[in-house]
Amino acid sequence: MAAGCHALIMSRIEAPRDELTGNLLDRLRSGLPAEAVLTDPDVTASYAHDMASFCDAGAPAAVVLPRTVEQVQHVMRTATELRVPVVPQGARTGLSGAANATDGCIVLSLTKMDRILEISPVDRIAVVEPGVINAVLSRAVGEHGLYYPPDPSSWEMCTIGGNIGTASGGLCCVKYGVTAEYVLGLDVVLADGRLMSTGRRTAKGVAGYDLTRLFVGSEGSLGIVVRAVLGLRPRPPQQLVLAAEFASTEAACDAVCRIMERGHAPSLLELMDHTTVKAVNDLAHMGLPESTQALLLAAFDTPDPAADLAAVGTLCEAAGATQVVPADDAAESELLLQARRLSLTALEAVKGTTMIDDVCVPRSRLGELFEGIGSIAAKFRLTIGVCAHAGDGNTHPTVCFDAADPDESRRARESFDEIMSLGLELGGTITGEHGVGVLKKEWLARELGPVGVEMQRAVKAVFDPLGILNPGKLF
Amino acid sequence: MAAGCHALIMSRIEAPRDELTGNLLDRLRSGLPAEAVLTDPDVTASYAHDMASFCDAGAPAAVVLPRTVEQVQHVMRTATELRVPVVPQGARTGLSGAANATDGCIVLSLTKMDRILEISPVDRIAVVEPGVINAVLSRAVGEHGLYYPPDPSSWEMCTIGGNIGTASGGLCCVKYGVTAEYVLGLDVVLADGRLMSTGRRTAKGVAGYDLTRLFVGSEGSLGIVVRAVLGLRPRPPQQLVLAAEFASTEAACDAVCRIMERGHAPSLLELMDHTTVKAVNDLAHMGLPESTQALLLAAFDTPDPAADLAAVGTLCEAAGATQVVPADDAAESELLLQARRLSLTALEAVKGTTMIDDVCVPRSRLGELFEGIGSIAAKFRLTIGVCAHAGDGNTHPTVCFDAADPDESRRARESFDEIMSLGLELGGTITGEHGVGVLKKEWLARELGPVGVEMQRAVKAVFDPLGILNPGKLF
Repeated sequence: MAAGCHALIMSRIEAPRDELTGNLLDRLRSGLPAEAVLTDPDVTASYAHDMASFCDAGAPAAVVLPRTVEQVQHVMRTATELRVPVVPQGARTGLSGAANATDGCIVLSLTKMDRILEISPVDRIAVVEPGVINAVLSRAVGEHGLYYPPDPSSWEMCTIGGNIGTASGGLCCVKYGVTAEYVLGLDVVLADGRLMSTGRRTAKGVAGYDLTRLFVGSEGSLGIVVRAVLGLRPRPPQQLVLAAEFASTEAACDAVCRIMERGHAPSLLELMDHTTVKAVNDLAHMGLPESTQALLLAAFDTPDPAADLAAVGTLCEAAGATQVVPADDAAESELLLQARRLSLTALEAVKGTTMIDDVCVPRSRLGELFEGIGSIAAKFRLTIGVCAHAGDGNTHPTVCFDAADPDESRRARESFDEIMSLGLELGGTITGEHGVGVLKKEWLARELGPVGVEMQRAVKAVFDPLGILNPGKLF
Repeated sequence: MAAGCHALIMSRIEAPRDELTGNLLDRLRSGLPAEAVLTDPDVTASYAHDMASFCDAGAPAAVVLPRTVEQVQHVMRTATELRVPVVPQGARTGLSGAANATDGCIVLSLTKMDRILEISPVDRIAVVEPGVINAVLSRAVGEHGLYYPPDPSSWEMCTIGGNIGTASGGLCCVKYGVTAEYVLGLDVVLADGRLMSTGRRTAKGVAGYDLTRLFVGSEGSLGIVVRAVLGLRPRPPQQLVLAAEFASTEAACDAVCRIMERGHAPSLLELMDHTTVKAVNDLAHMGLPESTQALLLAAFDTPDPAADLAAVGTLCEAAGATQVVPADDAAESELLLQARRLSLTALEAVKGTTMIDDVCVPRSRLGELFEGIGSIAAKFRLTIGVCAHAGDGNTHPTVCFDAADPDESRRARESFDEIMSLGLELGGTITGEHGVGVLKKEWLARELGPVGVEMQRAVKAVFDPLGILNPGKLF
């Protein structure tokens, strides 16, 4: 190659950032309304990251807010043509950095596509755009006597699209399962801008490979979900909650195993350790029993919840509960749940910063996990509060630390890793419901093994041959 | 190329069949016990096809019956090296030809890998090899107070591996869902013989793409399932059944919609049309009411099934039921279910041959589907009996015909296609639970559309780059 040509090519490749960005913005604006393309750095910076700690985020070249499928297709065609990374976002309430921007990317926010297109009580489905807020959908289907179970703690803010991207869980999973079980079909804009439909709007269907489920939990790395057919359930009766105090987490975990082994179907089964209970009291003066080492909350939304709670109360006592307090009514139940919902916020207040883990083990190993986390906290001289979706074996060990203290920060990170390692040793997974994102991508390879990673990467390449969809996440 | 070289290559390619087969058999036997490699043509021919009508089957070069994961790996390494197609099989009770042999293939029967490795009541899981028979597993977990719901009509014969390959359904799906919802993790031998683990043994988990679900329903075209972690439920109370007669299928479908719209959770909701009722009586003299145009069976396994049946009975009457008969006890319930289970056998007896379709529509369109099938039967002058998992909108229109009559056979095929076309027009799918196999592969493309087919094929190529896994199925 002649030196002149080479220089020309180099100068093209290393064209000033502004010129490349200008071209990108011109192209984006050619198919989007002016107000749908944000470029003010102060504004775009506010879209740079989700709610995960310790995950780097870059500076987006632009934030786009499409309102139609066609506009999403235009964005993806533009991104493919110019080889610009695209980071899809919902409400950015995720906890693994999966929605974090990369330098020069297009942040594709789906929040303006927020229409509920259909609710069918006979077919028990809802058809929605991705930006619909979880709580908005829940209330809308509730008016038809229906129930959309997935209830991540951010449900008043988070979007269905984000829930699908991260395969969200919540308190109800022990009875009703996770988001994945409610996604029947999807419309997806592929990396190159083409539109693909997956799945069905029927109760059953086995026509071809289940690409719907492949997209659920794929963290925006395979395509852009622009429409979803969601399965619904009949609205269950109001649940009634019971609280049981234990003198050890071991006894509480034993109670969890007894409850599940006897075939009970609680609509939630949550565990808060002493650290969490104290933190909630400190924050909200709720008068929870600080003498307890573990507070177990069980709920039933069955036809006779009081009878079920009584049976579960007996099992708790047999496992060594020091006190069992069934709520008398919905108001008391709500108060107990409020305490549980405040847990993460309360733990954040302990030292200013938290790292929230999400290790899930077979519930028979839950006691060992709690014990091990206690040892890890002691080893690293850290406060680690644990609240858990105990019925699922899914714990959120939350490391409380002062981010201004480099040594404590280092210990926090190391303890975080040891907790994941322990989870894998116990036959568990590094993430029960929060996803991999940036936070756990090094750990994903350890869980999947080399063959698993190779096949997952190859699947990614099928849908995103240029690697422009949410690069740097998952793998 | 010199003529001599060309001739040499040609002679290699066109080596006598016996020599190629001999080499294959030698290689297979080098890693399998002698009794695990069957070559007697009379024996191998008996493995050539499943229970689908009108699906061609070839002559296998060998049938192998491995007992270990390592032996399966040896078979796949051999197949990859020699580029020989592999057709995985369970009990060959499938209805779409997905297990049919191709000429010169290795039939890989997993029936000898039939151990239940673990049952955990606390974790509510079972770990099984693929050859375990569905009913054997169901009874084994029942002894622990547990329940494995998927119950295809072949459940006394079919294997869990086959159920996973075809994503089987059954009578219970309206309340408990299909096989896919009970598969938590898999060990899979890939086309090249490597072993990959997917999924988890925990209640929840979102580490990476959901490859587990990709394999469920993949009809052996992506890899060989050699171990499965299955989710279980607590065993529900014994169900109680109600039968309701209707003067039209339209009224019966209206009753189905009312029942589901009101939030009932029947453990089955089945519909038999007049043709099916008459066929069952003719076969088994069961004394079903032949005056009925549609017989609806509903069941509840709730704490108070009699109360639920009473409520459903009232809804049936409101929809125009001419008679409502709740079973008094388990024995009467079983008799009614027996009639439903005999339906396909009874319809087979009508004219000697049947084509069983498997169209699933949104349940709100079920009445239109029944009406349309009636018109199609009239248009083609055929007897088409319909029994349906009505609560799921999943019908099995069964074309009865004389295979010795070429004109009637042609009309049978044409009516079959028109029924699928109608299902798609009504927003449904060509297959609710039987799968695509050979029978419906031309229709799969129509349901998925060109982009869907392209992506599905590309996913296939990731796992099976040489195209040796169950070729000619699905696509």
